[in-house]
Amino acid sequence: MRLESETNPKVKRWRKIALDARAARKEGLALLEGVHVVESALDAGAELTCFIVRDAGLAQEAAELVARRRGDLPVFELPRKIYDEIAPVENGVGLMAEMKMPRNSDLDSSWEREDVLFLDGVQDAGNVGTLIRTAVASGFKRIALTPQCAKVWSAKVLRAGMGAHFGALFAENVDPDEFSRMYKGEIWSADARGGEDLFAAQLNASGPVCWVMGSEGQGVSEKMLELSDRRLYIPIEPDCESLNVGCAASVCMFDTRRRRSTGCDK
Amino acid sequence: MRLESETNPKVKRWRKIALDARAARKEGLALLEGVHVVESALDAGAELTCFIVRDAGLAQEAAELVARRRGDLPVFELPRKIYDEIAPVENGVGLMAEMKMPRNSDLDSSWEREDVLFLDGVQDAGNVGTLIRTAVASGFKRIALTPQCAKVWSAKVLRAGMGAHFGALFAENVDPDEFSRMYKGEIWSADARGGEDLFAAQLNASGPVCWVMGSEGQGVSEKMLELSDRRLYIPIEPDCESLNVGCAASVCMFDTRRRRSTGCDK
Repeated sequence: MRLESETNPKVKRWRKIALDARAARKEGLALLEGVHVVESALDAGAELTCFIVRDAGLAQEAAELVARRRGDLPVFELPRKIYDEIAPVENGVGLMAEMKMPRNSDLDSSWEREDVLFLDGVQDAGNVGTLIRTAVASGFKRIALTPQCAKVWSAKVLRAGMGAHFGALFAENVDPDEFSRMYKGEIWSADARGGEDLFAAQLNASGPVCWVMGSEGQGVSEKMLELSDRRLYIPIEPDCESLNVGCAASVCMFDTRRRRSTGCDK
Repeated sequence: MRLESETNPKVKRWRKIALDARAARKEGLALLEGVHVVESALDAGAELTCFIVRDAGLAQEAAELVARRRGDLPVFELPRKIYDEIAPVENGVGLMAEMKMPRNSDLDSSWEREDVLFLDGVQDAGNVGTLIRTAVASGFKRIALTPQCAKVWSAKVLRAGMGAHFGALFAENVDPDEFSRMYKGEIWSADARGGEDLFAAQLNASGPVCWVMGSEGQGVSEKMLELSDRRLYIPIEPDCESLNVGCAASVCMFDTRRRRSTGCDK
């Protein structure tokens, strides 16, 4: 079905979801953009409600995906101008899907002995998406986020996540104290300001581990540092200030993965 | 000095540099944005030619930096509308500096036995900037790039580099064959499609190492794979497709740094 008008209720809803993460949460809807993310959602059995396509310049792989799934989901076609206002990327493939936002996980007992990535105030949407992608790739498939973090199901986070969202379980708006009371594994904070050298530290990686990554400017909060069992830094060159938080998390989580696969405690 | 007109020759030049990496290269000029990048350039003794500030909403730390250096460099003040057209970020601190672009390094004998990060077609400017930041932090301070890569001194790469540019030496438009003939260390390619498990591989990290990272879509080119001594993959979860290239490079380069600091060959 073709939607021509900016005042169409669906178009108005999509614009609202695209621009305002809080409104999206209230509506319980997310917009997925791009072939890879939409395919990951379909493969994972996510509840998609419709496809949204651009009337001009639809990439071939996007057109093929829609053609394959046309029987399952309604397809709404938008003029380029309206599509581009809604889409989170410029010059994308011209395909989005509307999805019912998965339920936020409670910090129930299923979290107690699992590996966790804990994001403590990571505000940049691209960083949060990249962190989700790396976490799932390294086996840290539960992700807890404090209220200051970018919202997991916002369009920009979804885009940077490249489909990894559908392999993860999220708890948003998590209170550090509540998390710490619940969690039975070790809590390790990555802190550029001090602590132990990650590569020299003897760490017991055989049990569940929660890696804590802090905000772009301030790093891990005092609160989370207090609640941590270990405080570890990545040994970088002395003339450098810090790593990007996604890069730092990659080094930390894959270091844990390496220790497990090699059985090394260093 | 206040510049009010869009047709002022300086304003026209800055707009051209901001929008067109090739024009910037031709002019031999780069635009730095933000307090951190500008301070890093000053600390490194880069050839800055002037400050460019926004007439409204200049962040306090930016104003302080300009005040400290006002004697050394001319300051040009732009109306917000013109400033925002030139600046590579929205809602930045309101400070840029014009810099004479450093000379591109020749692949001379000084490269033969140094650690190198080789970027093989990495096109996204944000990724290239993050890669530079991680490379310098991990001690890989020489960076070679094929012609398909984003340009090192473009505004977006500079921004993502967060000042790390000034701790690195760059060779752009590098030909893989020429590089391979010159280089005396080992060339290791990070390739998600196959090769040896990085964490299981016995590697001699005591000599110079060149890590090769490929493009976002295709990975390392066939050409560079042929020229590599080793082909290594990061062992990720089977249901994941790949890592972001900046994250993958972080894991690889810091793995080499770890092997050196611990003296492990695994």
